[in-house]
Amino acid sequence: MAIHRIYLDDPAALAPGALEIGGEEARHAVRVKRLEPGNPIEVLDGAGRVGLATIADIDKPGGEWLLSLVVGEVRPVEPTRPRLDVLCPAPKGPRLSELIDGLSQAGAASWSALTTEHTAREPGEVRLDRVRRIAAEASKQCGRAWTLLIGEPVEASDVLAQVWARQALVMADASGGPYAPCGSEAITLMIGPEGGWSARELDGARAAGIAIARFGPHTMRVETAAVAAVAVILDLEARRGS
Amino acid sequence: MAIHRIYLDDPAALAPGALEIGGEEARHAVRVKRLEPGNPIEVLDGAGRVGLATIADIDKPGGEWLLSLVVGEVRPVEPTRPRLDVLCPAPKGPRLSELIDGLSQAGAASWSALTTEHTAREPGEVRLDRVRRIAAEASKQCGRAWTLLIGEPVEASDVLAQVWARQALVMADASGGPYAPCGSEAITLMIGPEGGWSARELDGARAAGIAIARFGPHTMRVETAAVAAVAVILDLEARRGS
Repeated sequence: MAIHRIYLDDPAALAPGALEIGGEEARHAVRVKRLEPGNPIEVLDGAGRVGLATIADIDKPGGEWLLSLVVGEVRPVEPTRPRLDVLCPAPKGPRLSELIDGLSQAGAASWSALTTEHTAREPGEVRLDRVRRIAAEASKQCGRAWTLLIGEPVEASDVLAQVWARQALVMADASGGPYAPCGSEAITLMIGPEGGWSARELDGARAAGIAIARFGPHTMRVETAAVAAVAVILDLEARRGS
Repeated sequence: MAIHRIYLDDPAALAPGALEIGGEEARHAVRVKRLEPGNPIEVLDGAGRVGLATIADIDKPGGEWLLSLVVGEVRPVEPTRPRLDVLCPAPKGPRLSELIDGLSQAGAASWSALTTEHTAREPGEVRLDRVRRIAAEASKQCGRAWTLLIGEPVEASDVLAQVWARQALVMADASGGPYAPCGSEAITLMIGPEGGWSARELDGARAAGIAIARFGPHTMRVETAAVAAVAVILDLEARRGS
């Protein structure tokens, strides 16, 4: 069985020595995972550090479960390379959670809501605090040492205008060819809205020499396209690097 | 705007000439898509044939919408190559729909529920008629000319025992390396359950010389792993073939 993991709300709390864990994390560890004193636990700060800990004591003072841990070594974990920042319109309802969940599992570094000419929803409508909570939970579920970062909303026209400042930018579109790995340490992936990119956006991208690639034979919803594109890009870049 | 598509329940009905469409498809075309006489429509049989049609008349006899189409050319559409058959345990609740939806969009040819040593759910619990309806709807949404096929449930031990009969078999597991494209026309992909493959299953696969590959840096739920693996395999096989 995999070692149980606990994510800290306060990354600064992760250091060798005694550490107390309360709240839902403690209840889950005791009542659901049935952990006992002596069991090992990994404590993650979501920013690339993992502490190898042991449960020293389990108590229930005042009716709330409390885990007393002893953290031994705290070691840094390298983030996934290349760093892949994903920009795409926020889908509605539960599909936004699916998107964040999928990006976390597939290995993207960050997500930012994108406004395009054909985007119905304004990025301002996306509640960043809520999306960050989804990202933290999703990152925990798939064991990421680095939580998926949630950026501020951006406009496609601004991204395209500043392309000179980026190391590598790729637009997902059915008109593109196979993704060509570039070996860059940081890649930005833009995925269009349900209605597709506008002719102006595509023409602008082509004129700027931006890579346009397709990631499958069929039309995909944005949350599926995100997983497919991230998987293909990370796989191909890893081959190029190895 | 993309041409509106209608899927026929009865593939035999697709032939050049007059064709009447009733029920929900007709209501949707008239009331939601606001189509009118003269508009073009694509009629798909879900088995690789597309008819190019025109709306000749719209009527509402007896209170139900009825589209009278004239189908012109009926042309065959090649299925996605390679044919990728996916076997994995059926996740519970809405995640089963997400899996079928994702496989349809990513371009798998078929899905069959897989029982493994660590699979909690028995394949017998999966209602194939319901899954086939989900597959038909998902295939329509992403414009597939070939509906995702839903196979009978299979046991991992049987698949591994019959590996000699298969053109190419790949097991997804974190212990594997990058996927090595094989150029085969038909590939079977096996994805394990939440609890992972058993040591016996992995050892058996290794002994049989079956390819074991990983499709991302993190642990993925089965419905995410399915999209990632299908996207990577189809992308790499297309490069090899071109």
